[in-house]
Amino acid sequence: MRPRPRAGLLTHPVRLVVLGFAVTVAATTLFLLLPVATTPGRTTSPLVAVFTATGAASGALAVVDTGTHWTTFGEVVIAAAVQLGGLGFMTSASLLGLLVSRRLGMRIRLLAAAETQSFGLGEVRRVVRAVALVTFTVEAVIAAVLFLRLWLTYDRSPARAAYESVFHSITAFNNAGHSLYGDNLVGFAADPVIILTVAGGVILGGLGFPVLFELRHELRTPRYWSLHTRVTLLGYGILTVAGTIAVAATEWRNAATLGEHGVGDKLLAAFFASTTARTAGFNSIDYADADASTLVVTDVLMFIGGGSASTAGGIKITTFMILFFAILAEARGDETVDAFGRQVSPAALRQALAVALLGVALIVVATLCLLSVSHHTLDQVLFEVTSAFGTVGLSTGITAELPAFAQCVLIVLMFIGRTGPIAVASALALRERRRLYRLPEERPIVG
Amino acid sequence: MRPRPRAGLLTHPVRLVVLGFAVTVAATTLFLLLPVATTPGRTTSPLVAVFTATGAASGALAVVDTGTHWTTFGEVVIAAAVQLGGLGFMTSASLLGLLVSRRLGMRIRLLAAAETQSFGLGEVRRVVRAVALVTFTVEAVIAAVLFLRLWLTYDRSPARAAYESVFHSITAFNNAGHSLYGDNLVGFAADPVIILTVAGGVILGGLGFPVLFELRHELRTPRYWSLHTRVTLLGYGILTVAGTIAVAATEWRNAATLGEHGVGDKLLAAFFASTTARTAGFNSIDYADADASTLVVTDVLMFIGGGSASTAGGIKITTFMILFFAILAEARGDETVDAFGRQVSPAALRQALAVALLGVALIVVATLCLLSVSHHTLDQVLFEVTSAFGTVGLSTGITAELPAFAQCVLIVLMFIGRTGPIAVASALALRERRRLYRLPEERPIVG
Ligand SMILES: [K+]
Ligand SMILES: [K+]
Repeated sequence: MRPRPRAGLLTHPVRLVVLGFAVTVAATTLFLLLPVATTPGRTTSPLVAVFTATGAASGALAVVDTGTHWTTFGEVVIAAAVQLGGLGFMTSASLLGLLVSRRLGMRIRLLAAAETQSFGLGEVRRVVRAVALVTFTVEAVIAAVLFLRLWLTYDRSPARAAYESVFHSITAFNNAGHSLYGDNLVGFAADPVIILTVAGGVILGGLGFPVLFELRHELRTPRYWSLHTRVTLLGYGILTVAGTIAVAATEWRNAATLGEHGVGDKLLAAFFASTTARTAGFNSIDYADADASTLVVTDVLMFIGGGSASTAGGIKITTFMILFFAILAEARGDETVDAFGRQVSPAALRQALAVALLGVALIVVATLCLLSVSHHTLDQVLFEVTSAFGTVGLSTGITAELPAFAQCVLIVLMFIGRTGPIAVASALALRERRRLYRLPEERPIVG
Repeated sequence: MRPRPRAGLLTHPVRLVVLGFAVTVAATTLFLLLPVATTPGRTTSPLVAVFTATGAASGALAVVDTGTHWTTFGEVVIAAAVQLGGLGFMTSASLLGLLVSRRLGMRIRLLAAAETQSFGLGEVRRVVRAVALVTFTVEAVIAAVLFLRLWLTYDRSPARAAYESVFHSITAFNNAGHSLYGDNLVGFAADPVIILTVAGGVILGGLGFPVLFELRHELRTPRYWSLHTRVTLLGYGILTVAGTIAVAATEWRNAATLGEHGVGDKLLAAFFASTTARTAGFNSIDYADADASTLVVTDVLMFIGGGSASTAGGIKITTFMILFFAILAEARGDETVDAFGRQVSPAALRQALAVALLGVALIVVATLCLLSVSHHTLDQVLFEVTSAFGTVGLSTGITAELPAFAQCVLIVLMFIGRTGPIAVASALALRERRRLYRLPEERPIVG
């Protein structure tokens, strides 16, 4: 048989994203399996190593307590995996986005066709350098603030304060949510310096490199911002405010979470919960004690996630906002989906639809898998599954108790959650083709 | 202020569907509040009367046991509400579908413009007559089979057998799921004659009048079938088979539901559960004992529902299938959504998207409402909410225990679930307008 002329669903540049992630996970797994990584007296099964590596590289769930199960060597491996996973993903997703927009530009500017199929090495290098610059700058600022606070207010030794602040600045900017503390950030719930600094890192990481790049160059000239940046910022703002209000409302009187706090601390914790659900996975409240409504609100936030080509997961803010604008357009009776004086490309709408629906389908199937092998309730299972798909890392605490099969499902979910949305959207975009004929149109009754 | 020149979201013919339904509910409520409707020794609060009336007219949930709470007079009122609700909805939805397709046809055939804004009375009468004919024919056949079975096998008196068979033939064809038996149809779970007859009525009612009409006239010439009929039949088949397999798989060993049955009875009960979840609401297994996975599978089936302009609820099979074909088209890299050698109208795709996403949003909001006022678990609440939205009537048994606010939410959901999808889709379709300009196109990164 001859090879088919058209490429498979995973076209070449997309495969790079998936492969890069797989290699990071594999290398991290091997390092974590070294005896020196595990605290004496504990053992690390291959499943735990794979789970932790996937969770770290995608910035999602952990299956053992980071601070007690792993040695400092193990913790450094995890931080390195988080950092590499974040850098690698931001870089490859940015390059992919660039490639897609060029390939599509090709349709319009056919003259440049020769340049559009691949990047020059210099171009790749420039993107990698810019991503690294942004990453390390933000992380350095966050680490500095955390260091001063931990050293001066919490009486850590300078060395310990430096170690903890670097670790948490990496997991914050990379939206990975791993913490050295057994209760994550619950102990700092009422410290606005720590909480707002971490939230700042989470937000900057979660906006995505294309947005950060544009803000860096055109911060004072919003009229030049691209549709992508405007939609992402608007969506981020709406979701943060709505999430804060919703979490505050559902937990206001819950004595195990916000109930005992004053109004300011309640709002701070609710704001942090809303921010971190998309999709950093730090927690300053204990989700095992949270109300079922809070879990559902958080599920929605985790599913939507952060910006494209960011360290956050989920179907992405643009995907959600495009669907939102599509409904607005329908309500107005418009044929086109418009936002900020621009028409959203119909192809982008169709891809948003595909990404969102495939995400829903995946979550339903995974939820059924977990429900059938565990005795946990739907709210717990759905939370865990959405957290894995959104590479969030929040948990009601059931991860470690789940049977091996369920943990494998979560690993697969984290893998797909990290690489899936961008891979699916880009693969679809790169495969677009014009047909020379159209079938006769017919209209089924809807609704 | 001057009235706005454009009609509101609820344009005139759409308002008719909503109003007709509201009038049916109001009249039924008044009849149920008559003392003669309630069994001596019991009382009927206004909330119970409104709930029961909405549930009956939309073919959805009941809040009290039909057989014991109501007198025979009350039962007849309920059966009448079911019948009127079904007839009225099938008629008005069919007329609306016809109106929409004409109005859209107007774009193409401008010559007939004068005729497209409204129907002649003769045309309305013809549709009403056809709907009534189909309804009463199917119900008569079902009632006859049930009568013979109940009389000959279950030793009912002829009068009682006639009464029960007519009642259940009405609730079956109208997908209303109300039963005179305290355990619904659990007592008949292993009787294929009763179960398959009721299922037959449910399926015929659930396909929708446009499909039934076409099948009646062109049963032997499938090549003339419209896209609507093909998509509905394919979707109905896929969902029935997939639902049967899923329910059988999740309940196979559950001693409280299928576990004690033989293989044949297991498959029969799973098939019935799959059929009735879309959206008839009879049950031959007790959902209070069902596995959480079964509830989730049933949620999905209830959300999708039956055919357009049918007695079933949900977002409708065509809505679901159009989105399904859209994903297939994306995976193939096509710009258009094709099915059965036809291109699905882009407007239909956008409306399907709007109906599905608004449905999801509504269910999330309602679930949060119920979770915040009740102590039931997410799987129970989600099941109840989806059942109300899909006007199904299945319940894990918590309806009666819910606080008044939650019951009001369910009433609103049943109302919206019944009238919403067709109203939204038609209102959107009737409001379509062409703009004389297009904004410059821009493409955000998706995924
Ligand atoms: K993440
Ligand atoms: K129904």
